[in-house]
Amino acid sequence: MNREQIRVLLQDVADQTCDVDQALGLLRDMPFEDATVALIDHHRALRTGIPEIIYGAGKTPEQIVMIVERMLASAGHAIVTRASRGAAEAVQQRFPQAHDYAVAHMLAVGEFPPPGPGPFVAVVSAGTSDLGVAEEAALTVELLGTRVERIYDVGVAGVHRLLEQRQRLWQAGCVIAVAGMEGALATVVGGLVDCPTLAVPTSVGYGVSLNGLAALLSMLNSCAPGVSVVNIDNGFGAGVCAHMILRGNRCV
Amino acid sequence: MNREQIRVLLQDVADQTCDVDQALGLLRDMPFEDATVALIDHHRALRTGIPEIIYGAGKTPEQIVMIVERMLASAGHAIVTRASRGAAEAVQQRFPQAHDYAVAHMLAVGEFPPPGPGPFVAVVSAGTSDLGVAEEAALTVELLGTRVERIYDVGVAGVHRLLEQRQRLWQAGCVIAVAGMEGALATVVGGLVDCPTLAVPTSVGYGVSLNGLAALLSMLNSCAPGVSVVNIDNGFGAGVCAHMILRGNRCV
Amino acid sequence: MNREQIRVLLQDVADQTCDVDQALGLLRDMPFEDATVALIDHHRALRTGIPEIIYGAGKTPEQIVMIVERMLASAGHAIVTRASRGAAEAVQQRFPQAHDYAVAHMLAVGEFPPPGPGPFVAVVSAGTSDLGVAEEAALTVELLGTRVERIYDVGVAGVHRLLEQRQRLWQAGCVIAVAGMEGALATVVGGLVDCPTLAVPTSVGYGVSLNGLAALLSMLNSCAPGVSVVNIDNGFGAGVCAHMILRGNRCV
Amino acid sequence: MNREQIRVLLQDVADQTCDVDQALGLLRDMPFEDATVALIDHHRALRTGIPEIIYGAGKTPEQIVMIVERMLASAGHAIVTRASRGAAEAVQQRFPQAHDYAVAHMLAVGEFPPPGPGPFVAVVSAGTSDLGVAEEAALTVELLGTRVERIYDVGVAGVHRLLEQRQRLWQAGCVIAVAGMEGALATVVGGLVDCPTLAVPTSVGYGVSLNGLAALLSMLNSCAPGVSVVNIDNGFGAGVCAHMILRGNRCV
Amino acid sequence: MNREQIRVLLQDVADQTCDVDQALGLLRDMPFEDATVALIDHHRALRTGIPEIIYGAGKTPEQIVMIVERMLASAGHAIVTRASRGAAEAVQQRFPQAHDYAVAHMLAVGEFPPPGPGPFVAVVSAGTSDLGVAEEAALTVELLGTRVERIYDVGVAGVHRLLEQRQRLWQAGCVIAVAGMEGALATVVGGLVDCPTLAVPTSVGYGVSLNGLAALLSMLNSCAPGVSVVNIDNGFGAGVCAHMILRGNRCV
Amino acid sequence: MNREQIRVLLQDVADQTCDVDQALGLLRDMPFEDATVALIDHHRALRTGIPEIIYGAGKTPEQIVMIVERMLASAGHAIVTRASRGAAEAVQQRFPQAHDYAVAHMLAVGEFPPPGPGPFVAVVSAGTSDLGVAEEAALTVELLGTRVERIYDVGVAGVHRLLEQRQRLWQAGCVIAVAGMEGALATVVGGLVDCPTLAVPTSVGYGVSLNGLAALLSMLNSCAPGVSVVNIDNGFGAGVCAHMILRGNRCV
Amino acid sequence: MNREQIRVLLQDVADQTCDVDQALGLLRDMPFEDATVALIDHHRALRTGIPEIIYGAGKTPEQIVMIVERMLASAGHAIVTRASRGAAEAVQQRFPQAHDYAVAHMLAVGEFPPPGPGPFVAVVSAGTSDLGVAEEAALTVELLGTRVERIYDVGVAGVHRLLEQRQRLWQAGCVIAVAGMEGALATVVGGLVDCPTLAVPTSVGYGVSLNGLAALLSMLNSCAPGVSVVNIDNGFGAGVCAHMILRGNRCV
Amino acid sequence: MNREQIRVLLQDVADQTCDVDQALGLLRDMPFEDATVALIDHHRALRTGIPEIIYGAGKTPEQIVMIVERMLASAGHAIVTRASRGAAEAVQQRFPQAHDYAVAHMLAVGEFPPPGPGPFVAVVSAGTSDLGVAEEAALTVELLGTRVERIYDVGVAGVHRLLEQRQRLWQAGCVIAVAGMEGALATVVGGLVDCPTLAVPTSVGYGVSLNGLAALLSMLNSCAPGVSVVNIDNGFGAGVCAHMILRGNRCV
Repeated sequence: MNREQIRVLLQDVADQTCDVDQALGLLRDMPFEDATVALIDHHRALRTGIPEIIYGAGKTPEQIVMIVERMLASAGHAIVTRASRGAAEAVQQRFPQAHDYAVAHMLAVGEFPPPGPGPFVAVVSAGTSDLGVAEEAALTVELLGTRVERIYDVGVAGVHRLLEQRQRLWQAGCVIAVAGMEGALATVVGGLVDCPTLAVPTSVGYGVSLNGLAALLSMLNSCAPGVSVVNIDNGFGAGVCAHMILRGNRCV
Repeated sequence: MNREQIRVLLQDVADQTCDVDQALGLLRDMPFEDATVALIDHHRALRTGIPEIIYGAGKTPEQIVMIVERMLASAGHAIVTRASRGAAEAVQQRFPQAHDYAVAHMLAVGEFPPPGPGPFVAVVSAGTSDLGVAEEAALTVELLGTRVERIYDVGVAGVHRLLEQRQRLWQAGCVIAVAGMEGALATVVGGLVDCPTLAVPTSVGYGVSLNGLAALLSMLNSCAPGVSVVNIDNGFGAGVCAHMILRGNRCV
Repeated sequence: MNREQIRVLLQDVADQTCDVDQALGLLRDMPFEDATVALIDHHRALRTGIPEIIYGAGKTPEQIVMIVERMLASAGHAIVTRASRGAAEAVQQRFPQAHDYAVAHMLAVGEFPPPGPGPFVAVVSAGTSDLGVAEEAALTVELLGTRVERIYDVGVAGVHRLLEQRQRLWQAGCVIAVAGMEGALATVVGGLVDCPTLAVPTSVGYGVSLNGLAALLSMLNSCAPGVSVVNIDNGFGAGVCAHMILRGNRCV
Repeated sequence: MNREQIRVLLQDVADQTCDVDQALGLLRDMPFEDATVALIDHHRALRTGIPEIIYGAGKTPEQIVMIVERMLASAGHAIVTRASRGAAEAVQQRFPQAHDYAVAHMLAVGEFPPPGPGPFVAVVSAGTSDLGVAEEAALTVELLGTRVERIYDVGVAGVHRLLEQRQRLWQAGCVIAVAGMEGALATVVGGLVDCPTLAVPTSVGYGVSLNGLAALLSMLNSCAPGVSVVNIDNGFGAGVCAHMILRGNRCV
Repeated sequence: MNREQIRVLLQDVADQTCDVDQALGLLRDMPFEDATVALIDHHRALRTGIPEIIYGAGKTPEQIVMIVERMLASAGHAIVTRASRGAAEAVQQRFPQAHDYAVAHMLAVGEFPPPGPGPFVAVVSAGTSDLGVAEEAALTVELLGTRVERIYDVGVAGVHRLLEQRQRLWQAGCVIAVAGMEGALATVVGGLVDCPTLAVPTSVGYGVSLNGLAALLSMLNSCAPGVSVVNIDNGFGAGVCAHMILRGNRCV
Repeated sequence: MNREQIRVLLQDVADQTCDVDQALGLLRDMPFEDATVALIDHHRALRTGIPEIIYGAGKTPEQIVMIVERMLASAGHAIVTRASRGAAEAVQQRFPQAHDYAVAHMLAVGEFPPPGPGPFVAVVSAGTSDLGVAEEAALTVELLGTRVERIYDVGVAGVHRLLEQRQRLWQAGCVIAVAGMEGALATVVGGLVDCPTLAVPTSVGYGVSLNGLAALLSMLNSCAPGVSVVNIDNGFGAGVCAHMILRGNRCV
Repeated sequence: MNREQIRVLLQDVADQTCDVDQALGLLRDMPFEDATVALIDHHRALRTGIPEIIYGAGKTPEQIVMIVERMLASAGHAIVTRASRGAAEAVQQRFPQAHDYAVAHMLAVGEFPPPGPGPFVAVVSAGTSDLGVAEEAALTVELLGTRVERIYDVGVAGVHRLLEQRQRLWQAGCVIAVAGMEGALATVVGGLVDCPTLAVPTSVGYGVSLNGLAALLSMLNSCAPGVSVVNIDNGFGAGVCAHMILRGNRCV
Repeated sequence: MNREQIRVLLQDVADQTCDVDQALGLLRDMPFEDATVALIDHHRALRTGIPEIIYGAGKTPEQIVMIVERMLASAGHAIVTRASRGAAEAVQQRFPQAHDYAVAHMLAVGEFPPPGPGPFVAVVSAGTSDLGVAEEAALTVELLGTRVERIYDVGVAGVHRLLEQRQRLWQAGCVIAVAGMEGALATVVGGLVDCPTLAVPTSVGYGVSLNGLAALLSMLNSCAPGVSVVNIDNGFGAGVCAHMILRGNRCV
């Protein structure tokens, strides 16, 4: 029962074509998703402005094309993460205007707002092997409309390379630190800046890197203030977090 | 070599009492912490306004009292986390004005800014056993000068208790979700709000809760947008993150 | 806004003392917990008949006495699990009629329905060290009003002891299999009966029993049909499940 | 030595063509499987009505076809789980009437009883990636003769989608909750219903989802009443459990 | 129904005071433990000669005394493993003739056969901290009636100490290798001898010894032939295995 | 310096063509492997009669053929375990008389002693998927010259199938119990027999079977006497152990 | 701002074309990497003499060729580790003089200093399957200019093979012990020598070798003095460590 | 048979009071520990100069006093690690001249060589909680006769504190990096210096620090060159390694 239906019901009560107990019964039995919960959803959509994202892993190119179509129709744009080459080609064949971000394994179709003028997110990565995850984070932030600065290849085994970038880091409103191996980057970055640091462990490494678990544990145990962590390789998740943090900054 | 010393050296060069190569040598060998890095630290202190915190676990009451004294002298206030009863008593005996937050196992001595008027942090917790960690988070936020609303005992096994609080949640600028057991609270909260959610797994539970590891894994795998995670029982860390996020909001 | 309040509002609409849009606004803004979700809770309480249980671990005797008082006032009875000796004594001092089930570490205060005449739950345990968990399961079932048969000390290293009990097992409507060590009991029991088997791993054991993890893994990998598993030492959880399964049996 | 043989032996004793000690020796040495244990098996088959299931993983198409043939001859029907495409094609070529349930990776050949009129099992799943496991559970229940309702794609990151389905959930006699990622669905479902909930963790996810281990731990730690858990991706096992639970309901 | 009862029944049949069908019914329904399975147990006891052992951990001194009493009455002797000091004192107070093996945390009451003349078990241990477990193994072997040679403190970090003992090792019929830390002893011993080696990891160590898990893994991965492993600290289990192996040797 | 060389040296001393100190120096510096340790090796080879085995995994067919050639030349026979199909074909092409045991993934070339008349090893396996590992164990025992009885497909979810075989089990001198999933077979077998039981966990299973770790843990925690364990899927290792155990039996 | 630029600035001050405060500002704001930190890097390069190494895993042949080109231009030589066959071929096609060390999966292009005359590193390995990692270690040491002795195939299951090599081991300045399976080699070697032992666990093994984790744990728990450990399969890392240790030896 | 005995035997051969074959037999049967292996031990003691160390954990004060006595008699000095307060008091009561290093939990009795003039070991630690382990490392180095510089409390969350110490670090011949939490210190130090870095993870931390496992994994995955790792909290082991590395440096 949506708003309009409730209005009609109330009008019927006002018109006395429906008596009070009957209306009460209808209201009580109404699936509350119609009256109330659906509002949550609507409300959310209005406030967040975050388009639904298609998680491409484990979906066939055909499925992805189909979902993109549906999302374009309803929302005017679509983002695909973890897109295989096959998915990228299928989407581009169907939507020649689609952007294929191969390094980040992402696709974007439709219109996206240009990043606004507010504070930016600094995406910092340790090694070239972390590039894919770093780009997934950076692109997510940009597609959501927030500005990004990329500071790549500044692993802490040569800590001076990172220190050289401290001026840019100090201007950021939020830092995303992407690192595999021992994940020490998040701690050193977190100790340099005074804005929130989102740490993204990557599955880069070998031996007991345990597919990123070593970096994850390292980051969770960081002794630097203001560091929180997302799942291994979850550049997208970090991007959404960072955008949410800076959106608060910007609008207020 | 600090700023003043460099100035003297440069003056000597200008006065030609020191020649260029000699000055170059002195500059090259100067411990850069004096010239540059020390500035980092000073700069940080100025910008962050986050007082040093004393991590009380594993320190004797005497050690804690001594550190508090030193911090009061230099900074005018001190915060102790993970304070044992013995530490609390020792600190209060020495500083009768100290506040003893027994539930949070925290102590605060000295003057703290009252929370400002900006957006607030909602601290949400699942069960009464999570109370200590939730309070550690909430008090940290407040002592750093940011406003908090406490929404406790809203575990998702009775999801309506949480839904009843959605209006307050929607007004928060950042949510800290504290939960042990299966940690599902972070996901449900993250799906309701559009601000950043900081998830704090707690070591509450038994069986294969693995001292909070089950909740931690659950939170890292959350499918809700905007969720990042801190270490198990790390209410203090979440509080610092949340304060940093909202401070950005407020000052801009 | 509860049912009565909605009725008043609708009457106002019918009486035209409140116009339709005004009513719509009120309804839309009503905290849905009042109109709808609260019903869930009420509904649940009516249907389940499962009294709230007090998890005693980590609560002081005083806290437990206080919660028991509140529950007696509202529900007429109270159950405490994981009750320490101190808690047991405090509760018995305050409520001399309280039952103290020391082996199961449980307390029960107030009136409980006698187990009905329907099918029974067989609680099977492997060794004497599993007794506490087995009793927690058995008592939970009984206090919820379902009949129990106890078949203890029938570990599978002497499989004939279990086989001797097969007649009683075949009459059960649900079996709870409690075992530590290698947890093989659940598989052998599950292979003997054709009703659901609830497996409870216990933390009994040493070496790489890993506090019950070995038994838990064993049970999750059981190749017998109809076996599902609860957390380590969670006799209470298994008891609630078993009661729910047989209540279905009984009422239809 | 089967029943008939024992009868003959006893007759011989009665006829005094075999003396008592001789008979005693024969009885003592009889493989008890013949006299007693074999009855177990027969008895079981009669009572359970659960056809033997072929676990297809790790078997060649030829092996599967051969086992299906044998089971059709003896039981009149056969079910294959975890059937590869190759196995599906081989079975359909040999038995054109075979049903190929591609999403669930199951095959069914022969006659199956139509689901009866009693209570139904609600199979609830979190995301589209959990579909295969959910369908394995649902089909298993149906092929065993119990009614199913499918409630898919109701992950708790958008908890209202699940709440919208609460009426159908309240009518179920047993719920199977299928979820990967953080597995929070089982807890939220378990908190909404008052019938048994069978939780099935799935290996969907990435990062530290650990191939379903994160969801498994989350479900084992569920704080909702009445939740028990089966192995990761074990839709079939949950289906058998649910059928056993409701069969009790129906026949009594 | 025991042997005598079956004999009576058969006599009744022979005497025709019981007809065949009646006897068949009685036999069919007889709890097979009486007719057959009990024989297993009796048979086992006769053949194994292994007295029941009381696992002392987690039992009160009173419980242990009670069980010892019962076992003395039925078997003439009793062995307690993992006996606390309290248990040792309680048993000795009640049975002054009891032997208290403090290093092995074992107690023995009653008559035990002196070790026979056959091949012996060599119990080899790495360090002094492994002594308790090594003695538990050695005493178990001796109390079961098999001869033991103790070769202690021959850790492989000084491999020559072990090599000096090779003559004695070569004469053993079975070796028990007890080691914590990295557990390498089992491999080196297994490479020196040509009889079976039973490896016992101990929980001695620190850091990532993981309470013996490192040693256990090391031993399971041993590249030496003829090595099998028992649980961490399970000296008793290794002793029983070794006795079984040599008993076979001796009797044939 | 081998035996002959020492003899020559001593002769030189006796002949006084070499003085005592010179000889002492030569003896002291002699690589002791020549004088003493090499004897170990020779001694071992003489006593064990266990041919070197080629572990085929990770070796190319060419490498395997080359090693087989070398072993045939020196020992007269060769055994390959974990042989790929390619290796099997390459070996058979070169040695047409080679036996290819495809199920066990083993190859045997040359003459092997027929199993002797002594006690036999019973190889018991739980499911058809454990067949490969069970056959690796059984063939190893047979090729080493010890008799084997195979008792397959007797998983404990239908415990009567195992009990039917108890007579054969009671005659075995050693049992190898092969099982994946929950590994309960080892415990039930160990409780039935009074000879040593070697438990072989297999990597069969899914979900949290963790590639055999669940079965391994279960077997290490077995509460049955006389059970020791080898590594996951290590049928070969169990076969060597069992042969060593029975060889002791036989020769004495 | 590099050294030359600082010199120019100082000259300007001396020439009074730049006043002191202006110079101070420039120096203070200079990215300190230019003034100071860059010197670190330069300094390091001068002292270490360790060429940058290309970690080939996860890079395309094209990427590797490109990086080799750049490194040849700047440093005159390049080393690639973990080079796939494709990478090896691409590099050799472009640089025909490149050395392809197939067993070690390494490539070396350009001029390398011949190993000097100082102490050598003994690289000891347990089995033929550890050869690749052992060679990666040995080649790394040699390419860095330090002498190596290879002592392969001396696993401790036949400890005499290792003992035969003790003379060579005693002459080494550092030992690298490479072993998979149970990793006991490191302990036995560490107990024989009095120079530092670098232990390299390898991922060779099966069952619960856990891809080298068992060997790693074993080595970390070694009770031999002077043993430290690098990551699983990290032959390169051990080689660099060993070179650093001996370079110290040589130059002083 | 020791050197003198062999000499006598050879003399007998020379004197022809013992014939060659008889001597050969005696030599062949001689326990080689006497002839050869014992030399290893003697040789080792001569070369290493590392006194035996008493690992105090798990030993009673009486046991420790007794071992110290024995070691003083034979070696003239003794070192105890992991000494409890009770042990310290007992040792000091018996040997008033004993040094009690309370922070390091070490005791030293007797004469120790003063640290020599060669290169020094820098012991770097991250936080005050790592002090005990750092001191155990530093004292070990000093007691073995090598010079130490302590650089404490330079955790990488404030990386400038570490950079300030780079001059001293560059002069060290070996660095021991002690850190708990995320263990990033080892990587940053390893990237700054060009001598070997020994990383010591400590069990300091909470949450998923897993008693030092997170730091251990981080250090094993370090991307800095020249880093090797010892067990958690194993300051003593790192001290011995560092001493061995620098002793090489010094003597050559």
